[in-house]
Amino acid sequence: MSAKTTILDMNRFDPSTASSLDEHKRDMVRRRAALGNGYRLFYRDPVEIVRGTGSHVFDEQGNDYLDAYNNVVSVGHCHPHVVEAISRQAALLNTHTRYLHETILDYSERLLAKLPEDIDRITYQCTGSEANDLAIRIARNYTGGRGIIVTNEAYHGNTDLVSGFSPSIGMGQELSPDCGLLPTPDTHLHGDEAIGDYMAAKLNEQIALMEARGVKFAGLLVDSIFSSDGIFPGKPGWLKKVADAAHAAGGLYIADEVQPGFCRTGDAFWGFERHGFVPDIVTMGKPMANGIACSATAVRHDILDAFTARIPYFNTFAGNPVAMAAASATLDVMENEDLMGNARRIGAMFVSQLEGLAVEHPCIADIRGAGLYIGVDFDDPATGDPMSVETLELIEHMRRRRVLTSNCGSFGNILKIRTPLVFSAADVDRYMTALADSLDALGL
Amino acid sequence: MSAKTTILDMNRFDPSTASSLDEHKRDMVRRRAALGNGYRLFYRDPVEIVRGTGSHVFDEQGNDYLDAYNNVVSVGHCHPHVVEAISRQAALLNTHTRYLHETILDYSERLLAKLPEDIDRITYQCTGSEANDLAIRIARNYTGGRGIIVTNEAYHGNTDLVSGFSPSIGMGQELSPDCGLLPTPDTHLHGDEAIGDYMAAKLNEQIALMEARGVKFAGLLVDSIFSSDGIFPGKPGWLKKVADAAHAAGGLYIADEVQPGFCRTGDAFWGFERHGFVPDIVTMGKPMANGIACSATAVRHDILDAFTARIPYFNTFAGNPVAMAAASATLDVMENEDLMGNARRIGAMFVSQLEGLAVEHPCIADIRGAGLYIGVDFDDPATGDPMSVETLELIEHMRRRRVLTSNCGSFGNILKIRTPLVFSAADVDRYMTALADSLDALGL
Repeated sequence: MSAKTTILDMNRFDPSTASSLDEHKRDMVRRRAALGNGYRLFYRDPVEIVRGTGSHVFDEQGNDYLDAYNNVVSVGHCHPHVVEAISRQAALLNTHTRYLHETILDYSERLLAKLPEDIDRITYQCTGSEANDLAIRIARNYTGGRGIIVTNEAYHGNTDLVSGFSPSIGMGQELSPDCGLLPTPDTHLHGDEAIGDYMAAKLNEQIALMEARGVKFAGLLVDSIFSSDGIFPGKPGWLKKVADAAHAAGGLYIADEVQPGFCRTGDAFWGFERHGFVPDIVTMGKPMANGIACSATAVRHDILDAFTARIPYFNTFAGNPVAMAAASATLDVMENEDLMGNARRIGAMFVSQLEGLAVEHPCIADIRGAGLYIGVDFDDPATGDPMSVETLELIEHMRRRRVLTSNCGSFGNILKIRTPLVFSAADVDRYMTALADSLDALGL
Repeated sequence: MSAKTTILDMNRFDPSTASSLDEHKRDMVRRRAALGNGYRLFYRDPVEIVRGTGSHVFDEQGNDYLDAYNNVVSVGHCHPHVVEAISRQAALLNTHTRYLHETILDYSERLLAKLPEDIDRITYQCTGSEANDLAIRIARNYTGGRGIIVTNEAYHGNTDLVSGFSPSIGMGQELSPDCGLLPTPDTHLHGDEAIGDYMAAKLNEQIALMEARGVKFAGLLVDSIFSSDGIFPGKPGWLKKVADAAHAAGGLYIADEVQPGFCRTGDAFWGFERHGFVPDIVTMGKPMANGIACSATAVRHDILDAFTARIPYFNTFAGNPVAMAAASATLDVMENEDLMGNARRIGAMFVSQLEGLAVEHPCIADIRGAGLYIGVDFDDPATGDPMSVETLELIEHMRRRRVLTSNCGSFGNILKIRTPLVFSAADVDRYMTALADSLDALGL
């Protein structure tokens, strides 16, 4: 499909247009050449950010931007409790896990208590990519299969292994010969009620095709809100049918909680939890330590034991005292400030206001969210075609109004609203005003 | 070879012996079960560390240990300049690289200035594993080959891809079908003068074997002090012959500088630099930001451009302001405190004192070092057999004297001395006293 964009190739600055920037930015863009062509900035007029607090960031002139994009700083930019924990631990000790240290034990116990009882082991890595890379190896080891099934626009990370299971990377990235693809669970197209049976049937088809070509099914690797597919949380419960089908076929369910985990959906601490089933492996990352590199793979002990009996695994920086102190402090804030409740309440308010706006803007074809992760489809009201170009223009207009937001989906026509979890009612108002003004300015 | 141990399976605590520990440690060991069986502690009596400064760490009772093992905290545990940089930046901003930020530009320029002129691009990752994973993909993309050659006991990381090129992991870890193996450059066996020609000839043999089985040679991936092979820095210059042979065969030379980089060898900022040749890709990690997860892949622009033209690569935490602030501060300390000079001077003093000790202890069969990375071979004076059991005992005796050191090599008979770069003359004295006393106690 030639119109298909990739999630890594949408909202971006084109360095060949640098002459239109002011001298300071032009100079920074020139210096960024040292990072290679892969380092893409957001926006036609890239944003320089020097400071952040809560859901706001500030440029070098002191202008404030509303951050409706960044999910890593889940408890807010530079939350003082997290900053204090990082500073205190960095001054005390930061070393690897071959020595005894309380922090990793305390944190692990707290986190395991938030997971289903069967998920009773946790191992640490530094990035979501490393967690998913390890999870696939663990699943393959346990099942004896190699086949991993993901969705059509999935992104699971950047290592050699997980890149092969991340179709949304696109361009010259080849998929693994052991990769099976499910369609995007497009509730806008198929409806909320039908989606569970539809996806379970598609999974069974893919498993059969995979096994017919001699690849044994090892597991399903899924982000339960289908972020890079275009944000399709669906109604709580539907995904259980798919998980049951994976289990019935002898495969594991790997829940990639890098995006939906840690209160994001408002309904539950984990994304899979909305759907009432127990995965076999849970990977997590981004918001875990509010920006300090920290990720983890949580897993049933029998599955992990089978792996560690064969393969020694060590990760130098993983689980170090500073990462664990930052992760503990992040969890404190989530609990103390009831950020799950905030995500639920503010997310519901956001969706309700978007629905109000949709009445006057028929190009808003679908609104779907879970907590503070919301997708808004823009389709041509006459033809139903995805409004890819217009949605990208919308992002740029929002940026001029100093609201940072983005787009996603295979056609780039989905507005992606993914705020820090501390987003307030006033923040929603500011976002909605900028969105309404931008739609008007674009005549949409 | 049945006697072969693995680097990940030597100095370790056996949890089944926990009953011999005091109640506090027994409890911590029990709680560590949550991390799975893969989390191995050092020592029969594991060390709990709560605080560190310079080349010393402290347990919960306030006892100080001399750290002659940890190379991540290269500028010393909790160096105040690094701690201050982390704390300051964590309070200001910590986000990804899609916005403009000065810190990554300043640091990249400083670091590229320390690399050969041809290496003119730098991309960031979070771990050495991620850097090597990416480097292999970049080399394969550029050469069109898949074959990677490493040494017999190499360790290059823990992702699925690099695990297949890390024979030292051992146990059930399979090598990649695209992996070629060079022998350890054992200067103790082959002599310093012969080693360059010997290894170059072995490389040519391996390339021929690889290509005979239809695998095109993509590159040589080498740690220039051969850390996990048993520390074989050799005389400056010998490795150029091997690099030249790799280039003559159309492959790239990937310098894994995770261990030898950042002043470690005392002779130069980078390990490969001792040998007077220019690699094509340079990977780095561990000591880069003194413990904050930070790694990088530096590469020639034509090689990187060929990759980024095909594959979008993004790494959420990589190059974030806190990691870059920590890395910049670490580099400040290396320069301001002349840690390269310190590594050279203290390393030479260390080797000289070890040579003095060897006169009275014929079991010391070889001493070799570059800066503050020193290996000492223990062989049975009568038979020449590696003294694997005795070297492990020695490590345990040193630990009882509160000196943290380790062993390595395929038989575990090599004492591994790899101190923070701030190690002092007094620290060497303490180490040597503990070593002499331990040898005496063991009757060696």
